[in-house]
Amino acid sequence: MTIKAYGAHASTRPLEPMGITRRIPGEHDVQIAIAYCGVCHSDIHQVRSEWAGTLYPCVPGHEIVGRVTAVGAHVDNHQVGDLVGVGCIVDSCQHCDDCDDGLENYCDHMVGTYNSPTPDAPGHTLGGYSQQIVVHERYVLRIRHPEAQLAAVAPLLCAGITTYSPLRHWKVGPGQKVGVVGIGGLGHMGIKLAHAMGAHVVAFTTSESKREDARALGADEVVVSRNAGEMAAHAKSLDFILNTVAAPHDLDAFVVLLKRDGAMTLVGAPASPHPSPQVMNLIGKRRSIAGSMIGGIPETQEMLDFCAAHGIAADIELIRIDQINDAYERMLKGDVKYRFVIDAATLAG
Amino acid sequence: MTIKAYGAHASTRPLEPMGITRRIPGEHDVQIAIAYCGVCHSDIHQVRSEWAGTLYPCVPGHEIVGRVTAVGAHVDNHQVGDLVGVGCIVDSCQHCDDCDDGLENYCDHMVGTYNSPTPDAPGHTLGGYSQQIVVHERYVLRIRHPEAQLAAVAPLLCAGITTYSPLRHWKVGPGQKVGVVGIGGLGHMGIKLAHAMGAHVVAFTTSESKREDARALGADEVVVSRNAGEMAAHAKSLDFILNTVAAPHDLDAFVVLLKRDGAMTLVGAPASPHPSPQVMNLIGKRRSIAGSMIGGIPETQEMLDFCAAHGIAADIELIRIDQINDAYERMLKGDVKYRFVIDAATLAG
Repeated sequence: MTIKAYGAHASTRPLEPMGITRRIPGEHDVQIAIAYCGVCHSDIHQVRSEWAGTLYPCVPGHEIVGRVTAVGAHVDNHQVGDLVGVGCIVDSCQHCDDCDDGLENYCDHMVGTYNSPTPDAPGHTLGGYSQQIVVHERYVLRIRHPEAQLAAVAPLLCAGITTYSPLRHWKVGPGQKVGVVGIGGLGHMGIKLAHAMGAHVVAFTTSESKREDARALGADEVVVSRNAGEMAAHAKSLDFILNTVAAPHDLDAFVVLLKRDGAMTLVGAPASPHPSPQVMNLIGKRRSIAGSMIGGIPETQEMLDFCAAHGIAADIELIRIDQINDAYERMLKGDVKYRFVIDAATLAG
Repeated sequence: MTIKAYGAHASTRPLEPMGITRRIPGEHDVQIAIAYCGVCHSDIHQVRSEWAGTLYPCVPGHEIVGRVTAVGAHVDNHQVGDLVGVGCIVDSCQHCDDCDDGLENYCDHMVGTYNSPTPDAPGHTLGGYSQQIVVHERYVLRIRHPEAQLAAVAPLLCAGITTYSPLRHWKVGPGQKVGVVGIGGLGHMGIKLAHAMGAHVVAFTTSESKREDARALGADEVVVSRNAGEMAAHAKSLDFILNTVAAPHDLDAFVVLLKRDGAMTLVGAPASPHPSPQVMNLIGKRRSIAGSMIGGIPETQEMLDFCAAHGIAADIELIRIDQINDAYERMLKGDVKYRFVIDAATLAG
């Protein structure tokens, strides 16, 4: 079945319309008519081959929401007409310890929603900048938000789970003071989620202009990290820091804000390394620097249900597919509050 | 009371005999006739002012064992004649959260056994390269080893607790595969302790010559870390790594050996930074790099009791005090198995 999509034929070319094929749904597959797809910074890295190994044509997009249009004979949990989502993962080995623990995101054979090997044509997965997708039922999430929120739910599938998973894993909750570094696509979700989990949230930004926005998102305090005095006021006081900034920066400035036994978890990987953190800052208070990648399928469902229950979705700017190349340029300038979402209906036009 | 000690009058001078004074024991003080004092690498750094702020005269030594010779009126837990130890800590604020949690080692006002401010002359603490010391009862540990082992117990007060504390904090035990990086004063204790805790221990060394020694210390496997093939065989397999190497080195080579959710804890702080670790190695398996510093007083007692119950002490080379300058030179060449211990009786001579 040929459908319309948007993708790149080479790292130096803009995204453009193309036809792609999707497989006929197998026994365990769910076929989804895509309604919206969020635009993640990873999409840009992949399309432009800023990470090793981009395969072309490259159709990005891993924040997918839509409606089920067909299901295989052995699909139990999804029905035609359901509102569903697909995030960064469309397959994994399904039998390792990670998969058994519901942490398919850490499976060595995790298949990403785009640019991963697949038996389907053209030999690598093609993502959500398209009209339709066929995915194994295990990796399809149920959406319980009102349909009117559907576009704003799309970014939960990557930005939401990438921030929710470490907040849960490091047991963020009431009585804790939690930092969120960076107020972008990931950070704005981190603030909303940490706030909803009951923590006292301190948002860190380099932009004085984001102070009010951060408060509106749920931050109890906002620190402009260039201001040494504001930073010093939080020394040794944070239980946990979720650091969403992928650009290389001074990690020590945040590590010293952690209490004894505090952890700072990084969810962005810089293209060139951060300055090497001072070991003495870790030793002196038994602090940790950790990393976390997306989240598992069961916790993605838990996150979606948590967000539905708390009325949480992303703050988005809806775009037509023919605005995608401009959207990328604006993202690179930080000019989006806080996530672009593609209206997939515009692919038909 | 004037007693004999060995210390340095300046960073460029060797250690030499000197007379120092100790306070008359107060109500909560324990006076200890020092029998042995271990020689820690920190002693060299401090004496030579390789860390900021060495105060002279500098009398190092924080692996102290001996016998109680007097106690203050309100001392409950120690009696004249008891075998006792003093480690890196001789005072702290005694009322912060860290102190309340028995983690005096993380108290912001922790007073080190040498080079820390004190009301006593000469205004900073003087350590265990001396005949006698007076310490608040809270920081005095009971030794239950046989007296014949006393010299080999001394290094437990720093090298022992510095490795025991992170092994316990990160819950090392049976069924786990644990790495110990570096087989020196700290590492050789780490191997013995992790083995006694029931873990499968993999020792990592740069020296082919230490292979047999590491097995004798309790390692189940020994990896020469320069050998890429040996390293690769342990990829993604370790639950925890205790890294005792203070020299700058490639942390990534060890991080990639951790399982999902594994942690590598550093107990040595390099004089210049390690190469910056790759964030993607942390993110991809939710790994952590952490630090840990010595241990609290209650867990130091627990460690001493654990070692007494398991027949564990350090492997030492006993020296006369007038051999101390040569011992430093040998330590800098890695020529000690695995800890020098000063026979304090030789101070009298």
